[in-house]
Amino acid sequence: MTDLILHEYASSGNCYKIRLTAAHVGAILERREYDILKGETRNPAFLGTVNANGRIPVLQIGGRFLPESNAACVWLAHGSALIPADRFDHADMLRWMFWEQYNHEPNVATLRFWRAMIGVANLSDAQRAQLPAKQAAADAALALMEDHLAMRDWFAANRFTLADIALYAYTHVAGEGGIDLARYPAISAWLARVAARPGHIAIAA
Amino acid sequence: MTDLILHEYASSGNCYKIRLTAAHVGAILERREYDILKGETRNPAFLGTVNANGRIPVLQIGGRFLPESNAACVWLAHGSALIPADRFDHADMLRWMFWEQYNHEPNVATLRFWRAMIGVANLSDAQRAQLPAKQAAADAALALMEDHLAMRDWFAANRFTLADIALYAYTHVAGEGGIDLARYPAISAWLARVAARPGHIAIAA
Repeated sequence: MTDLILHEYASSGNCYKIRLTAAHVGAILERREYDILKGETRNPAFLGTVNANGRIPVLQIGGRFLPESNAACVWLAHGSALIPADRFDHADMLRWMFWEQYNHEPNVATLRFWRAMIGVANLSDAQRAQLPAKQAAADAALALMEDHLAMRDWFAANRFTLADIALYAYTHVAGEGGIDLARYPAISAWLARVAARPGHIAIAA
Repeated sequence: MTDLILHEYASSGNCYKIRLTAAHVGAILERREYDILKGETRNPAFLGTVNANGRIPVLQIGGRFLPESNAACVWLAHGSALIPADRFDHADMLRWMFWEQYNHEPNVATLRFWRAMIGVANLSDAQRAQLPAKQAAADAALALMEDHLAMRDWFAANRFTLADIALYAYTHVAGEGGIDLARYPAISAWLARVAARPGHIAIAA
């Protein structure tokens, strides 16, 4: 098999998604850590070789580089049961993955990054001014998930897919961003179902 | 073929993506318009039936509803040349579509919506405070596209794919958001290539 290298910041949920997908499909990843708090993904070497967008994760596949966490998950899960073959189910899985990047990650993940990693005292004025809007949007994203899961076990295709992996990554650590997950019983039950899957690994693994 | 209904706001680039994909694959869409400026996607009927997330576009496929523009494009283009079959190329196409929703749309599309549709005078203080950051992020997104296209004709797979459609939608009207596209010669040449494809339709079509 082609050598796979994950360029990452291990506590990032976006990086964890890729490790979790790899664990479920039995792929071996070499891991290369970058300290994003020290700007290690914004130096010329990283920008010129790994990702011109200055962001982790990037999945290196032999000599090629694939940025964007959810795209890397799709590459890894190719041909596996994590990706539905049915045309609608496949698109519906992607629907939740696009939603995750647009409505969930910029709010749920950013609150965790700002509050637990940078620290509110160290935020810029512009960042601090965005906290109420980020909190409201995170609450709305979790409410939408709660409603969806109230009647379903999984996000798409009535089974465990990449949509669950993509949404699990930052939802299960949302508490670090100041969100009280106990307010969301359907989400909490779904988090437990994801964690109970054979092959599951923790974010700190 | 299953009846297809596009729930949309026609001047939205996210809705145009779906119409452009449909035009390229020869799918017929019934179009149903909602005035987002009047909140028509936030009323109980829309939220309860079409999309609990209160957003357009939604592609209705028979009795099922598929939100998220890029997911709808994938459904429509299933089995067509717009989606590469090669494992890496397929993931790389999705990479640009996820990037579009995370780095491009929230900045390039939002500047257009705020400046050309709502009007700067009508923005909230919180919105107005975000203008410099949105402008900087839009400039960065276009600079990344310019660098990528300086050496390539298309975003992924060395050919015209859904990645080009997804990125064309808001890029070609970025001028309405105050961006000077003449500063980006590679993007401008790529926009012309996309518009010259057989089957192309305009956003106002």
